[in-house]
Amino acid sequence: MTSPVRLALLGCGTVGGEVVRLLHEQSADLAARIGAPLELAGIAVRRINRDRGELPVDPSLFTTDALGLIKRDDVDVVVEVVGGIEPAREWLVEALRAGKSVVTANKALLAEDGGALHDAAAEGGADLYYEAAVAGAIPLLRPLRESLHGDRITRVTGIVNGTTNFILSAMDATGAGFAEALEQATELGYAEADPTADVEGFDAAAKAAILASLAFHTRVSAADVHREGITEVTAADVASAKAMGCTIKLLCLAARGVDAAGRETVNVRVHPAMIPLTHPLAGVGDAFNAVFVEAEAAGPLMFYGRGAGGAPTASAVLGDVVAVARNRLAGVRAASESAYADLSVRSMGEALTRYHVSLDVADRPGVLAAVAGVFARHDVSIATVWQGPAEGSAPGSGADADLVIVTHVAPDAALAATVSELRGLDIVRSVTSVLRVEGEA
Amino acid sequence: MTSPVRLALLGCGTVGGEVVRLLHEQSADLAARIGAPLELAGIAVRRINRDRGELPVDPSLFTTDALGLIKRDDVDVVVEVVGGIEPAREWLVEALRAGKSVVTANKALLAEDGGALHDAAAEGGADLYYEAAVAGAIPLLRPLRESLHGDRITRVTGIVNGTTNFILSAMDATGAGFAEALEQATELGYAEADPTADVEGFDAAAKAAILASLAFHTRVSAADVHREGITEVTAADVASAKAMGCTIKLLCLAARGVDAAGRETVNVRVHPAMIPLTHPLAGVGDAFNAVFVEAEAAGPLMFYGRGAGGAPTASAVLGDVVAVARNRLAGVRAASESAYADLSVRSMGEALTRYHVSLDVADRPGVLAAVAGVFARHDVSIATVWQGPAEGSAPGSGADADLVIVTHVAPDAALAATVSELRGLDIVRSVTSVLRVEGEA
Repeated sequence: MTSPVRLALLGCGTVGGEVVRLLHEQSADLAARIGAPLELAGIAVRRINRDRGELPVDPSLFTTDALGLIKRDDVDVVVEVVGGIEPAREWLVEALRAGKSVVTANKALLAEDGGALHDAAAEGGADLYYEAAVAGAIPLLRPLRESLHGDRITRVTGIVNGTTNFILSAMDATGAGFAEALEQATELGYAEADPTADVEGFDAAAKAAILASLAFHTRVSAADVHREGITEVTAADVASAKAMGCTIKLLCLAARGVDAAGRETVNVRVHPAMIPLTHPLAGVGDAFNAVFVEAEAAGPLMFYGRGAGGAPTASAVLGDVVAVARNRLAGVRAASESAYADLSVRSMGEALTRYHVSLDVADRPGVLAAVAGVFARHDVSIATVWQGPAEGSAPGSGADADLVIVTHVAPDAALAATVSELRGLDIVRSVTSVLRVEGEA
Repeated sequence: MTSPVRLALLGCGTVGGEVVRLLHEQSADLAARIGAPLELAGIAVRRINRDRGELPVDPSLFTTDALGLIKRDDVDVVVEVVGGIEPAREWLVEALRAGKSVVTANKALLAEDGGALHDAAAEGGADLYYEAAVAGAIPLLRPLRESLHGDRITRVTGIVNGTTNFILSAMDATGAGFAEALEQATELGYAEADPTADVEGFDAAAKAAILASLAFHTRVSAADVHREGITEVTAADVASAKAMGCTIKLLCLAARGVDAAGRETVNVRVHPAMIPLTHPLAGVGDAFNAVFVEAEAAGPLMFYGRGAGGAPTASAVLGDVVAVARNRLAGVRAASESAYADLSVRSMGEALTRYHVSLDVADRPGVLAAVAGVFARHDVSIATVWQGPAEGSAPGSGADADLVIVTHVAPDAALAATVSELRGLDIVRSVTSVLRVEGEA
């Protein structure tokens, strides 16, 4: 058999530990699939003496000198599972420029500055793979960057953050509010002590940028993504969604559009939205992830699986390791970044979406006409209206009434301006719920 | 830009016509993704003058001489969408031996004699891609043959035939029998005039062989697949499934196992089975396809989309065309067949499965003991039992009773022998439904 392909592993936490375990357990299979054995050249960690359980690895492989390890001549492939922007960027740019293949799960870095990594890969003639960066174990990036290259993707809609999906699923199942559901998620280990990155949508926004870049052959960074988290989703919102035959999910959306000048654009955003229970994404519960892809010829596609966790993430990392190891043995490099389309990113205000608005209004003549007039002034077309007595009010008593309006598609800025004007109307006692609606057939 | 990559298209029916259309419509995008334009060198058809609607193609490209077209020096890639064993096998072996890349949607040929194609590809140093052969547009084979190569797949469970899924979905929705639902499927164009290949499970068996080969790194052919169709699924079976919180699907299953000597085996089969409504495959309705993959580290994964139709299939074909064209330009060949594991195929009798059995029995003392005794004699463990008066019988009247038994997992031969012995018992008036149960959590 050929001489081994040697790996430098950067990071040995939950994911890194699983990578070490799988490299050991599957070594015969991996060698057969690659045509050469894989060998760990070293493992860079911050603290050598941390308790890592029983890892099947020679303790002398641990080092705190990541850069030194990367630069070693006997290292062919660098596997990074540390996360964060620095020093990961410096390490990976160094490795790629030196012609070493890189496999990384670092979504934050890819979304912040993927361009720097792709440029370094091109410079060094090296492979850059990152299947584990989005939706954990789900084979998603390779289908996007290869299988669908004969087609034209029009829209990607994903549930890519397990923590928020767990929280929203719990709110839907129990009627709990956000704070209570978050507490439960924390207790069960689905939310971190500081849940900001998840519940504010930063994690999903990074993944949205990566997905949009691949789907639309355009560099999209986290800064291009409109981001709203789930902290303001209320039990009343969840109840409103249920009444509509919907459920609320934190969605990452990336869609093609056309600007006023007729040029193609792309809009990328992360926000909570109502989706109908009949949509394939509605049934994705707990901490699972799923990504719904619409392409012109292929039609609708969905990819479903575990989005996080040590073993699922390690599975994706090792799939990439097999691919880059094979490429090295064959002396080839995989297809590099495809960013030829270079579409301009459309702002959220221009994005086309639909709103579901629940109002608490005075129950007297002319109210519906006044409310409908606000929508008309902003050129927003109404799809459905429901009006009924508010809980506890007798009809016609002049007390409060509930008014629920769902719009047709309109620019988000027009919808937001409509809601803002509604809030100022005398006859509107309060705007009880505003949610975007996605996932229509 | 580099000189064009030239394609020979074999077949110009529904799929071929869509390939021609997409090549035309997407030409700029395809060229940008490949780094060179794609050009049609010729289209081999049986009858040149057939009406093909308005195809955006020079009519002089049509020829009836497929072999002559394949052998032309200016042909780099051969795309086959004709189907059937011969002459497709001769054509593709010729092309691959001559070092031309092949993209094919021919599941029957791959399942019958994929080995001959892989051998010819190895001999000619050529690429052989066939994403469109299984589950149409769903990017499934590339994830199996690449993304999951760092993992160990334990089981693949798929709904891979749209016609039978449409028929079973209709039976479930309306309570119709098989014949009536088939008639509806034929009228709506979901079933062919001769539906044998679909309803008898031949189509699904071919796809099962291809999936099993990729998932388990072992050559599996259609002859290795245990095959049962859906023609004997009755309205009573569907009602039994509903009563159990299940639905009936025609499943293709491929699972790892271990034989008596402790050697790893693989079992591949196609048959109707009850699956719980909570299983992700249960919601796959109409003519959609979905494949559920279980891997040791990744956990459960599902791939969902359109399994047939001109445009979806053409999307998969063109994705492969982009890949092989890129490989040609880079002067490389993709990873070849991976069949190193060479597991032995276990017979259906040895396959582990579960049965759901409904009996019409005499309602008198000792019946349950006698029936349970039969299961025990065959070493089959019972999971759940339900007994109640048959429709129209008063309890304790000595009239008929319904007895529904669901077993634990046991070898299929033991389960079949149990049912056979039950049929011979005096106290069993009739066996009203026998179905395998799959998809437990």
